[in-house]
Amino acid sequence: MLDFNTEPFRNTSPREMRNLIRAGEWTYPTTGLCNGNVQCNLIVLPKDWAYDFLVFAQRNPKSCPLLDVTEIGSPKPVIMAEDSDLRTDIPKYRVWRDGVVVDEPTDVIKYWRDDLVAFLTGCSFSFENALVENSIPMRHIDDGTNVAVYITNIQCTPAGRLSGPMVVSMRPVRNEKVPASVLCTGRFPSMHGAPVHIGDPSAIGIKDINKVDFGDRIEVKEGEMPVFWACGVTPQAVVMNSKPPFAITHAPGYMYISDRTDTEYSVM
Amino acid sequence: MLDFNTEPFRNTSPREMRNLIRAGEWTYPTTGLCNGNVQCNLIVLPKDWAYDFLVFAQRNPKSCPLLDVTEIGSPKPVIMAEDSDLRTDIPKYRVWRDGVVVDEPTDVIKYWRDDLVAFLTGCSFSFENALVENSIPMRHIDDGTNVAVYITNIQCTPAGRLSGPMVVSMRPVRNEKVPASVLCTGRFPSMHGAPVHIGDPSAIGIKDINKVDFGDRIEVKEGEMPVFWACGVTPQAVVMNSKPPFAITHAPGYMYISDRTDTEYSVM
Repeated sequence: MLDFNTEPFRNTSPREMRNLIRAGEWTYPTTGLCNGNVQCNLIVLPKDWAYDFLVFAQRNPKSCPLLDVTEIGSPKPVIMAEDSDLRTDIPKYRVWRDGVVVDEPTDVIKYWRDDLVAFLTGCSFSFENALVENSIPMRHIDDGTNVAVYITNIQCTPAGRLSGPMVVSMRPVRNEKVPASVLCTGRFPSMHGAPVHIGDPSAIGIKDINKVDFGDRIEVKEGEMPVFWACGVTPQAVVMNSKPPFAITHAPGYMYISDRTDTEYSVM
Repeated sequence: MLDFNTEPFRNTSPREMRNLIRAGEWTYPTTGLCNGNVQCNLIVLPKDWAYDFLVFAQRNPKSCPLLDVTEIGSPKPVIMAEDSDLRTDIPKYRVWRDGVVVDEPTDVIKYWRDDLVAFLTGCSFSFENALVENSIPMRHIDDGTNVAVYITNIQCTPAGRLSGPMVVSMRPVRNEKVPASVLCTGRFPSMHGAPVHIGDPSAIGIKDINKVDFGDRIEVKEGEMPVFWACGVTPQAVVMNSKPPFAITHAPGYMYISDRTDTEYSVM
Protein backbone atom coordinates (compact mmCIF):
# COMPACT_ATOMS: atom_id res chain seq x y z
CA MET A 1 0.00 0.00 0.00
CA LEU A 2 2.47 2.56 -1.24
CA ASP A 3 1.58 6.25 -1.50
CA PHE A 4 4.07 6.30 -4.36
CA ASN A 5 6.69 4.00 -5.82
CA THR A 6 10.15 5.34 -6.53
CA GLU A 7 11.55 1.97 -7.54
CA PRO A 8 11.34 2.53 -11.33
CA PHE A 9 13.12 5.89 -10.92
CA ARG A 10 16.06 4.92 -8.70
CA ASN A 11 18.50 5.12 -11.60
CA THR A 12 16.76 7.70 -13.75
CA SER A 13 19.06 10.59 -14.70
CA PRO A 14 18.47 13.87 -12.87
CA ARG A 15 17.79 15.67 -16.16
CA GLU A 16 15.17 13.12 -17.19
CA MET A 17 13.59 13.24 -13.72
CA ARG A 18 13.44 17.05 -13.83
CA ASN A 19 11.77 16.78 -17.24
CA LEU A 20 9.13 14.45 -15.77
CA ILE A 21 8.64 16.81 -12.82
CA ARG A 22 8.36 19.86 -15.09
CA ALA A 23 5.77 18.01 -17.20
CA GLY A 24 3.73 17.24 -14.08
CA GLU A 25 4.37 13.50 -14.37
CA TRP A 26 5.96 13.12 -10.92
CA THR A 27 3.98 14.85 -8.17
CA TYR A 28 5.26 12.99 -5.12
CA PRO A 29 8.17 13.41 -2.67
CA THR A 30 11.61 12.80 -4.17
CA THR A 31 13.13 10.51 -1.54
CA GLY A 32 14.64 7.46 -3.23
CA LEU A 33 14.79 9.02 -6.71
CA CYS A 34 17.95 9.28 -8.84
CA ASN A 35 20.20 7.37 -6.43
CA GLY A 36 23.59 8.96 -5.95
CA ASN A 37 22.55 12.46 -7.03
CA VAL A 38 22.50 15.42 -4.69
CA GLN A 39 19.00 16.55 -3.70
CA CYS A 40 18.56 20.12 -2.49
CA ASN A 41 16.29 22.27 -0.36
CA LEU A 42 15.11 25.53 -1.89
CA ILE A 43 14.60 28.89 -0.28
CA VAL A 44 13.97 32.02 -2.31
CA LEU A 45 14.04 35.47 -0.71
CA PRO A 46 13.98 39.07 -1.93
CA LYS A 47 17.50 40.51 -2.33
CA ASP A 48 16.81 42.76 0.66
CA TRP A 49 16.74 39.60 2.86
CA ALA A 50 19.43 37.62 1.05
CA TYR A 51 22.39 38.99 3.04
CA ASP A 52 20.75 37.94 6.28
CA PHE A 53 20.20 34.44 4.90
CA LEU A 54 23.82 34.09 3.74
CA VAL A 55 25.03 34.97 7.23
CA PHE A 56 22.36 32.71 8.78
CA ALA A 57 23.60 29.81 6.65
CA GLN A 58 27.21 30.47 7.67
CA ARG A 59 26.24 30.45 11.35
CA ASN A 60 24.06 27.34 11.04
CA PRO A 61 25.97 25.05 8.68
CA LYS A 62 24.40 21.84 10.01
CA SER A 63 20.90 23.02 9.04
CA CYS A 64 21.76 25.17 6.01
CA PRO A 65 24.77 23.83 4.09
CA LEU A 66 24.80 26.21 1.11
CA LEU A 67 25.29 24.56 -2.28
CA ASP A 68 24.28 27.29 -4.73
CA VAL A 69 23.24 30.94 -4.76
CA THR A 70 21.69 32.31 -7.93
CA GLU A 71 22.37 35.69 -9.47
CA ILE A 72 19.77 38.25 -8.41
CA GLY A 73 16.61 37.64 -10.44
CA SER A 74 17.89 34.43 -12.01
CA PRO A 75 16.17 31.05 -11.42
CA LYS A 76 19.20 29.14 -12.84
CA PRO A 77 21.37 27.23 -10.35
CA VAL A 78 24.61 27.22 -12.35
CA ILE A 79 26.65 25.16 -9.91
CA MET A 80 24.16 22.35 -9.30
CA ALA A 81 22.79 21.80 -12.80
CA GLU A 82 23.10 22.92 -16.37
CA ASP A 83 19.97 24.02 -18.13
CA SER A 84 17.52 23.87 -15.26
CA ASP A 85 14.90 26.29 -13.97
CA LEU A 86 14.15 26.44 -10.25
CA ARG A 87 10.66 27.82 -10.99
CA THR A 88 9.48 24.59 -12.62
CA ASP A 89 11.80 21.72 -11.70
CA ILE A 90 10.50 20.88 -8.21
CA PRO A 91 7.30 18.80 -7.79
CA LYS A 92 5.68 21.07 -5.19
CA TYR A 93 6.43 24.54 -3.83
CA ARG A 94 5.29 26.66 -0.97
CA VAL A 95 4.71 30.38 -1.43
CA TRP A 96 4.92 32.39 1.78
CA ARG A 97 3.70 35.89 2.68
CA ASP A 98 4.61 37.30 6.09
CA GLY A 99 5.51 33.84 7.37
CA VAL A 100 2.32 32.10 6.24
CA VAL A 101 1.88 29.63 3.35
CA VAL A 102 -0.46 31.23 0.81
CA ASP A 103 -0.09 28.72 -2.02
CA GLU A 104 1.32 25.25 -2.76
CA PRO A 105 1.72 25.33 -6.55
CA THR A 106 3.59 22.93 -8.83
CA ASP A 107 5.47 25.81 -10.45
CA VAL A 108 6.21 29.36 -9.34
CA ILE A 109 6.51 31.13 -12.68
CA LYS A 110 3.75 33.61 -11.88
CA TYR A 111 5.37 34.42 -8.51
CA TRP A 112 8.89 35.07 -9.83
CA ARG A 113 10.34 38.58 -9.52
CA ASP A 114 13.50 40.36 -10.63
CA ASP A 115 14.66 40.95 -7.06
CA LEU A 116 14.59 37.30 -5.93
CA VAL A 117 17.64 35.25 -4.95
CA ALA A 118 17.39 31.45 -4.77
CA PHE A 119 19.45 29.37 -2.37
CA LEU A 120 19.92 25.62 -2.66
CA THR A 121 21.04 23.79 0.47
CA GLY A 122 22.04 20.18 1.06
CA CYS A 123 19.40 17.56 1.89
CA SER A 124 19.61 14.34 3.87
CA PHE A 125 17.96 12.43 1.00
CA SER A 126 21.44 12.59 -0.56
CA PHE A 127 23.01 10.37 2.07
CA GLU A 128 20.15 7.88 2.33
CA ASN A 129 21.83 5.95 -0.44
CA ALA A 130 24.98 5.69 1.71
CA LEU A 131 22.87 4.48 4.63
CA VAL A 132 21.20 1.81 2.48
CA GLU A 133 24.61 0.70 1.20
CA ASN A 134 25.67 0.32 4.84
CA SER A 135 22.74 -2.11 5.34
CA ILE A 136 20.66 0.51 7.12
CA PRO A 137 17.28 0.27 5.36
CA MET A 138 15.13 3.40 4.99
CA ARG A 139 11.66 2.45 6.16
CA HIS A 140 9.98 5.49 4.60
CA ILE A 141 11.39 4.65 1.16
CA ASP A 142 10.39 0.99 1.48
CA ASP A 143 6.92 2.07 2.66
CA GLY A 144 6.59 4.73 -0.05
CA THR A 145 6.04 7.58 2.39
CA ASN A 146 7.77 10.87 3.16
CA VAL A 147 10.47 11.14 5.85
CA ALA A 148 9.45 12.18 9.42
CA VAL A 149 10.33 15.81 10.21
CA TYR A 150 10.07 17.65 13.54
CA ILE A 151 10.59 21.17 14.89
CA THR A 152 12.98 20.99 17.87
CA ASN A 153 13.70 23.27 20.83
CA ILE A 154 17.28 23.79 19.57
CA GLN A 155 17.53 27.46 18.62
CA CYS A 156 19.56 28.37 15.54
CA THR A 157 22.12 31.17 15.84
CA PRO A 158 20.26 34.28 14.60
CA ALA A 159 21.55 36.49 11.78
CA GLY A 160 20.06 39.91 11.15
CA ARG A 161 16.27 39.57 11.07
CA LEU A 162 16.35 35.77 10.74
CA SER A 163 15.94 33.41 13.69
CA GLY A 164 14.08 30.23 14.54
CA PRO A 165 14.31 26.65 15.72
CA MET A 166 16.29 23.83 14.11
CA VAL A 167 14.17 21.32 12.22
CA VAL A 168 15.28 17.66 12.11
CA SER A 169 14.50 14.57 10.08
CA MET A 170 14.26 11.22 11.87
CA ARG A 171 15.14 7.74 10.69
CA PRO A 172 14.87 4.62 12.86
CA VAL A 173 18.18 2.71 12.96
CA ARG A 174 18.76 -0.72 14.51
CA ASN A 175 20.78 -0.32 17.72
CA GLU A 176 23.82 -2.15 16.40
CA LYS A 177 23.87 0.05 13.29
CA VAL A 178 23.76 3.44 15.05
CA PRO A 179 27.56 4.04 15.00
CA ALA A 180 27.70 3.11 11.30
CA SER A 181 24.87 5.60 10.63
CA VAL A 182 26.95 8.35 12.26
CA LEU A 183 30.10 7.49 10.32
CA CYS A 184 28.57 7.13 6.88
CA THR A 185 26.55 10.37 7.10
CA GLY A 186 29.46 12.26 8.70
CA ARG A 187 31.20 11.92 5.35
CA PHE A 188 28.60 14.30 3.89
CA PRO A 189 28.90 17.60 5.78
CA SER A 190 27.24 19.41 2.84
CA MET A 191 24.16 17.18 3.28
CA HIS A 192 23.75 17.90 7.04
CA GLY A 193 26.52 15.44 7.97
CA ALA A 194 26.43 13.39 11.16
CA PRO A 195 23.26 13.31 13.29
CA VAL A 196 22.54 16.13 15.73
CA HIS A 197 20.84 13.79 18.20
CA ILE A 198 20.45 10.08 18.92
CA GLY A 199 17.70 8.63 21.12
CA ASP A 200 15.29 10.33 23.52
CA PRO A 201 13.16 12.70 21.39
CA SER A 202 12.16 14.80 24.42
CA ALA A 203 15.80 15.87 24.91
CA ILE A 204 15.42 18.07 21.81
CA GLY A 205 11.86 19.13 22.53
CA ILE A 206 9.95 16.52 20.52
CA LYS A 207 7.02 15.58 22.79
CA ASP A 208 5.53 12.78 20.71
CA ILE A 209 7.58 10.90 18.13
CA ASN A 210 4.31 9.85 16.47
CA LYS A 211 3.28 13.42 15.75
CA VAL A 212 5.36 14.88 12.95
CA ASP A 213 5.48 18.58 12.09
CA PHE A 214 6.20 17.88 8.41
CA GLY A 215 6.29 14.72 6.27
CA ASP A 216 4.93 11.38 7.47
CA ARG A 217 5.11 9.40 10.73
CA ILE A 218 7.64 6.56 10.66
CA GLU A 219 7.30 3.68 13.12
CA VAL A 220 10.26 3.13 15.47
CA LYS A 221 10.31 -0.60 16.18
CA GLU A 222 11.67 -2.66 19.10
CA GLY A 223 15.49 -2.76 18.93
CA GLU A 224 15.69 0.51 16.98
CA MET A 225 16.86 3.97 17.97
CA PRO A 226 15.43 7.18 16.53
CA VAL A 227 18.32 9.08 14.91
CA PHE A 228 17.88 12.77 14.12
CA TRP A 229 19.65 14.77 11.45
CA ALA A 230 19.51 18.54 10.90
CA CYS A 231 16.99 19.21 8.14
CA GLY A 232 16.72 21.67 5.28
CA VAL A 233 13.17 22.49 6.34
CA THR A 234 14.84 24.67 9.00
CA PRO A 235 14.63 27.77 6.72
CA GLN A 236 10.85 27.24 6.57
CA ALA A 237 10.65 27.30 10.38
CA VAL A 238 12.76 30.47 10.19
CA VAL A 239 10.36 31.98 7.65
CA MET A 240 7.44 31.12 9.97
CA ASN A 241 9.26 32.78 12.87
CA SER A 242 10.84 35.79 11.14
CA LYS A 243 8.05 36.58 8.68
CA PRO A 244 9.83 38.03 5.66
CA PRO A 245 7.20 39.70 3.44
CA PHE A 246 7.74 37.12 0.68
CA ALA A 247 9.46 33.77 0.26
CA ILE A 248 9.28 30.65 -1.88
CA THR A 249 10.43 27.22 -0.69
CA HIS A 250 10.05 23.64 -1.82
CA ALA A 251 7.30 21.69 -0.02
CA PRO A 252 8.93 19.43 2.60
CA GLY A 253 10.11 16.20 0.96
CA TYR A 254 9.61 17.56 -2.57
CA MET A 255 13.21 18.39 -3.36
CA TYR A 256 15.27 19.77 -6.22
CA ILE A 257 17.28 16.98 -7.87
CA SER A 258 20.65 18.22 -9.11
CA ASP A 259 23.20 16.95 -11.63
CA ARG A 260 25.91 16.75 -8.97
CA THR A 261 26.75 13.40 -7.39
CA ASP A 262 26.90 12.70 -3.66
CA THR A 263 30.45 11.48 -4.14
CA GLU A 264 31.55 14.90 -5.38
CA TYR A 265 30.51 16.26 -1.97
CA SER A 266 31.75 13.44 0.25
CA VAL A 267 34.71 13.96 2.53
CA MET A 268 37.14 11.08 2.86
CA MET B 1 69.55 30.92 11.65
CA LEU B 2 65.87 31.32 12.42
CA ASP B 3 63.92 34.42 11.50
CA PHE B 4 61.79 33.59 14.50
CA ASN B 5 61.33 30.70 16.90
CA THR B 6 57.84 29.40 17.59
CA GLU B 7 59.04 26.51 19.75
CA PRO B 8 58.34 28.16 23.14
CA PHE B 9 54.80 29.03 21.96
CA ARG B 10 53.65 25.71 20.50
CA ASN B 11 51.39 25.02 23.49
CA THR B 12 50.59 28.57 24.54
CA SER B 13 46.84 29.17 24.88
CA PRO B 14 45.23 31.21 22.09
CA ARG B 15 44.05 33.82 24.58
CA GLU B 16 47.56 34.26 26.00
CA MET B 17 49.04 34.40 22.49
CA ARG B 18 46.50 37.05 21.43
CA ASN B 19 47.45 39.05 24.54
CA LEU B 20 51.13 38.87 23.50
CA ILE B 21 50.22 39.90 19.96
CA ARG B 22 48.04 42.77 21.15
CA ALA B 23 50.90 43.96 23.38
CA GLY B 24 53.27 43.92 20.40
CA GLU B 25 55.36 41.10 21.89
CA TRP B 26 54.91 38.73 18.93
CA THR B 27 55.49 40.43 15.57
CA TYR B 28 56.22 37.39 13.39
CA PRO B 29 54.17 34.95 11.31
CA THR B 30 51.95 32.63 13.34
CA THR B 31 52.78 29.28 11.71
CA GLY B 32 53.56 26.73 14.41
CA LEU B 33 51.98 28.70 17.26
CA CYS B 34 49.26 27.30 19.57
CA ASN B 35 49.27 23.79 18.14
CA GLY B 36 45.81 22.36 17.66
CA ASN B 37 44.00 25.71 17.50
CA VAL B 38 42.30 27.00 14.38
CA GLN B 39 44.14 29.86 12.68
CA CYS B 40 42.15 32.18 10.41
CA ASN B 41 42.55 34.52 7.47
CA LEU B 42 40.95 37.95 7.81
CA ILE B 43 39.20 40.03 5.21
CA VAL B 44 37.24 43.15 6.12
CA LEU B 45 35.03 44.90 3.58
CA PRO B 46 32.45 47.68 3.66
CA LYS B 47 28.90 46.34 4.03
CA ASP B 48 28.21 47.41 0.47
CA TRP B 49 30.70 44.71 -0.68
CA ALA B 50 29.92 42.09 1.96
CA TYR B 51 27.11 40.38 0.03
CA ASP B 52 29.40 39.83 -2.93
CA PHE B 53 32.04 38.32 -0.65
CA LEU B 54 29.54 35.93 0.99
CA VAL B 55 28.50 34.65 -2.42
CA PHE B 56 32.15 34.52 -3.55
CA ALA B 57 33.01 32.40 -0.52
CA GLN B 58 30.09 30.05 -1.23
CA ARG B 59 31.27 29.60 -4.82
CA ASN B 60 34.92 29.12 -3.87
CA PRO B 61 34.83 27.00 -0.72
CA LYS B 62 38.34 25.56 -1.21
CA SER B 63 39.90 29.04 -1.07
CA CYS B 64 37.43 30.77 1.25
CA PRO B 65 35.96 28.39 3.84
CA LEU B 66 33.94 30.82 5.96
CA LEU B 67 34.30 30.40 9.72
CA ASP B 68 32.85 33.64 11.09
CA VAL B 69 31.06 36.78 9.91
CA THR B 70 30.85 39.70 12.32
CA GLU B 71 27.85 41.92 12.84
CA ILE B 72 28.08 45.09 10.74
CA GLY B 73 30.50 47.47 12.46
CA SER B 74 31.59 44.94 15.08
CA PRO B 75 35.21 43.69 15.30
CA LYS B 76 34.20 40.76 17.58
CA PRO B 77 34.28 37.27 16.07
CA VAL B 78 31.73 35.63 18.37
CA ILE B 79 31.98 32.13 16.93
CA MET B 80 35.76 31.81 16.89
CA ALA B 81 36.71 33.43 20.19
CA GLU B 82 35.26 35.01 23.28
CA ASP B 83 36.53 38.41 24.24
CA SER B 84 38.71 39.16 21.24
CA ASP B 85 39.08 42.18 18.98
CA LEU B 86 39.97 41.69 15.34
CA ARG B 87 41.43 45.23 15.18
CA THR B 88 44.30 44.39 17.54
CA ASP B 89 44.74 40.62 17.82
CA ILE B 90 46.65 39.93 14.60
CA PRO B 91 50.44 40.63 14.43
CA LYS B 92 50.36 42.46 11.10
CA TYR B 93 47.60 43.82 8.87
CA ARG B 94 47.31 45.18 5.39
CA VAL B 95 45.10 48.18 4.65
CA TRP B 96 43.96 48.41 1.02
CA ARG B 97 42.55 51.28 -1.02
CA ASP B 98 41.36 50.58 -4.57
CA GLY B 99 43.26 47.28 -4.63
CA VAL B 100 46.59 48.66 -3.42
CA VAL B 101 48.23 48.18 -0.01
CA VAL B 102 48.50 51.60 1.61
CA ASP B 103 49.61 50.56 5.11
CA GLU B 104 50.90 47.52 7.03
CA PRO B 105 50.07 48.41 10.62
CA THR B 106 50.13 46.22 13.74
CA ASP B 107 46.60 47.30 14.64
CA VAL B 108 43.75 48.82 12.63
CA ILE B 109 41.91 50.77 15.31
CA LYS B 110 42.27 54.07 13.45
CA TYR B 111 40.97 52.49 10.23
CA TRP B 112 37.85 50.89 11.72
CA ARG B 113 34.44 52.11 10.55
CA ASP B 114 30.82 51.46 11.45
CA ASP B 115 30.05 49.99 8.04
CA LEU B 116 32.73 47.28 8.04
CA VAL B 117 32.08 43.54 8.10
CA ALA B 118 34.90 41.15 9.05
CA PHE B 119 35.16 37.64 7.64
CA LEU B 120 37.36 34.91 9.10
CA THR B 121 38.20 31.99 6.82
CA GLY B 122 40.07 28.75 7.47
CA CYS B 123 43.86 28.58 7.14
CA SER B 124 46.17 25.72 6.26
CA PHE B 125 48.30 26.46 9.33
CA SER B 126 45.53 24.63 11.20
CA PHE B 127 46.26 21.30 9.56
CA GLU B 128 50.06 21.54 9.71
CA ASN B 129 49.85 19.94 13.11
CA ALA B 130 48.04 16.96 11.54
CA LEU B 131 50.76 16.75 8.86
CA VAL B 132 53.52 16.77 11.49
CA GLU B 133 51.67 14.07 13.47
CA ASN B 134 51.64 12.02 10.25
CA SER B 135 55.47 12.27 10.15
CA ILE B 136 55.35 14.91 7.42
CA PRO B 137 57.71 17.60 8.74
CA MET B 138 57.05 21.26 7.90
CA ARG B 139 60.33 22.69 6.65
CA HIS B 140 59.24 26.32 7.03
CA ILE B 141 58.37 25.80 10.69
CA ASP B 142 61.65 23.99 11.36
CA ASP B 143 63.52 26.73 9.49
CA GLY B 144 61.60 29.52 11.22
CA THR B 145 60.32 31.06 7.99
CA ASN B 146 56.91 31.81 6.51
CA VAL B 147 55.14 29.33 4.21
CA ALA B 148 55.58 29.65 0.40
CA VAL B 149 52.57 31.21 -1.33
CA TYR B 150 51.90 31.61 -5.07
CA ILE B 151 49.28 33.18 -7.33
CA THR B 152 48.05 30.52 -9.80
CA ASN B 153 46.34 30.66 -13.19
CA ILE B 154 43.27 28.91 -11.72
CA GLN B 155 40.43 31.43 -11.89
CA CYS B 156 37.99 31.56 -8.99
CA THR B 157 34.26 31.57 -9.80
CA PRO B 158 33.31 35.26 -9.77
CA ALA B 159 30.52 36.69 -7.61
CA GLY B 160 29.15 40.16 -8.20
CA ARG B 161 32.08 42.57 -8.50
CA LEU B 162 34.59 40.08 -7.04
CA SER B 163 36.88 37.93 -9.17
CA GLY B 164 40.49 36.86 -9.27
CA PRO B 165 42.95 33.98 -9.30
CA MET B 166 43.28 31.25 -6.69
CA VAL B 167 46.29 31.61 -4.40
CA VAL B 168 47.98 28.46 -3.07
CA SER B 169 50.43 27.55 -0.33
CA MET B 170 53.14 24.97 -1.05
CA ARG B 171 54.76 22.42 1.22
CA PRO B 172 57.37 19.90 0.04
CA VAL B 173 56.33 16.33 0.93
CA ARG B 174 58.49 13.22 0.59
CA ASN B 175 57.17 11.13 -2.34
CA GLU B 176 56.10 8.21 -0.17
CA LYS B 177 54.15 10.55 2.12
CA VAL B 178 52.12 12.34 -0.57
CA PRO B 179 49.00 10.14 -0.24
CA ALA B 180 49.07 10.55 3.57
CA SER B 181 49.29 14.32 3.11
CA VAL B 182 46.10 14.22 1.00
CA LEU B 183 44.21 12.05 3.48
CA CYS B 184 45.11 13.89 6.65
CA THR B 185 44.36 17.36 5.23
CA GLY B 186 41.18 16.11 3.51
CA ARG B 187 39.74 15.71 7.00
CA PHE B 188 39.78 19.51 7.35
CA PRO B 189 37.52 20.93 4.61
CA SER B 190 37.11 24.13 6.66
CA MET B 191 40.88 24.66 6.51
CA HIS B 192 41.16 24.29 2.70
CA GLY B 193 40.99 20.47 2.91
CA ALA B 194 42.87 18.23 0.47
CA PRO B 195 45.45 19.73 -1.91
CA VAL B 196 44.31 21.37 -5.16
CA HIS B 197 47.45 20.25 -7.00
CA ILE B 198 50.39 17.86 -6.62
CA GLY B 199 53.62 18.15 -8.61
CA ASP B 200 54.46 20.23 -11.69
CA PRO B 201 54.08 23.89 -10.65
CA SER B 202 53.72 25.05 -14.26
CA ALA B 203 50.45 23.10 -14.60
CA ILE B 204 48.82 25.74 -12.36
CA GLY B 205 50.72 28.69 -13.79
CA ILE B 206 53.65 28.88 -11.36
CA LYS B 207 56.64 29.58 -13.58
CA ASP B 208 59.40 29.39 -10.97
CA ILE B 209 58.90 27.52 -7.70
CA ASN B 210 61.76 29.55 -6.22
CA LYS B 211 59.94 32.85 -6.74
CA VAL B 212 57.09 33.19 -4.26
CA ASP B 213 54.36 35.83 -4.54
CA PHE B 214 53.87 35.95 -0.76
CA GLY B 215 55.72 34.44 2.22
CA ASP B 216 59.14 32.81 1.92
CA ARG B 217 60.78 30.43 -0.54
CA ILE B 218 60.93 26.82 0.68
CA GLU B 219 63.46 24.43 -0.84
CA VAL B 220 62.01 21.33 -2.54
CA LYS B 221 64.65 18.61 -2.09
CA GLU B 222 65.43 15.46 -4.07
CA GLY B 223 62.77 12.82 -3.41
CA GLU B 224 60.14 15.40 -2.52
CA MET B 225 57.03 16.58 -4.34
CA PRO B 226 55.67 20.12 -4.11
CA VAL B 227 52.10 19.86 -2.79
CA PHE B 228 49.76 22.84 -3.21
CA TRP B 229 46.79 23.72 -1.04
CA ALA B 230 44.21 26.49 -1.67
CA CYS B 231 45.22 29.48 0.43
CA GLY B 232 43.36 32.14 2.36
CA VAL B 233 45.45 34.82 0.67
CA THR B 234 43.09 34.31 -2.28
CA PRO B 235 40.82 37.18 -1.09
CA GLN B 236 43.87 39.48 -1.25
CA ALA B 237 44.44 38.53 -4.88
CA VAL B 238 40.73 39.22 -5.40
CA VAL B 239 41.09 42.64 -3.74
CA MET B 240 44.07 43.38 -6.04
CA ASN B 241 41.97 42.38 -9.05
CA SER B 242 38.55 43.78 -8.14
CA LYS B 243 39.71 46.96 -6.38
CA PRO B 244 37.06 47.58 -3.72
CA PRO B 245 37.52 51.16 -2.44
CA PHE B 246 38.57 49.92 1.00
CA ALA B 247 39.59 46.63 2.61
CA ILE B 248 41.59 45.33 5.54
CA THR B 249 43.28 41.92 5.59
CA HIS B 250 45.89 40.15 7.68
CA ALA B 251 49.41 40.23 6.22
CA PRO B 252 50.12 36.83 4.61
CA GLY B 253 51.30 34.38 7.28
CA TYR B 254 50.29 36.67 10.15
CA MET B 255 47.06 34.97 11.10
CA TYR B 256 44.28 35.32 13.63
CA ILE B 257 44.57 32.58 16.29
CA SER B 258 41.13 31.45 17.50
CA ASP B 259 39.89 29.60 20.58
CA ARG B 260 38.44 26.81 18.47
CA THR B 261 40.33 23.55 18.06
CA ASP B 262 41.17 21.87 14.77
CA THR B 263 39.40 18.75 16.03
CA GLU B 264 36.10 20.64 16.30
CA TYR B 265 36.34 21.24 12.55
CA SER B 266 37.67 17.86 11.44
CA VAL B 267 35.47 15.49 9.48
CA MET B 268 35.77 11.79 10.31
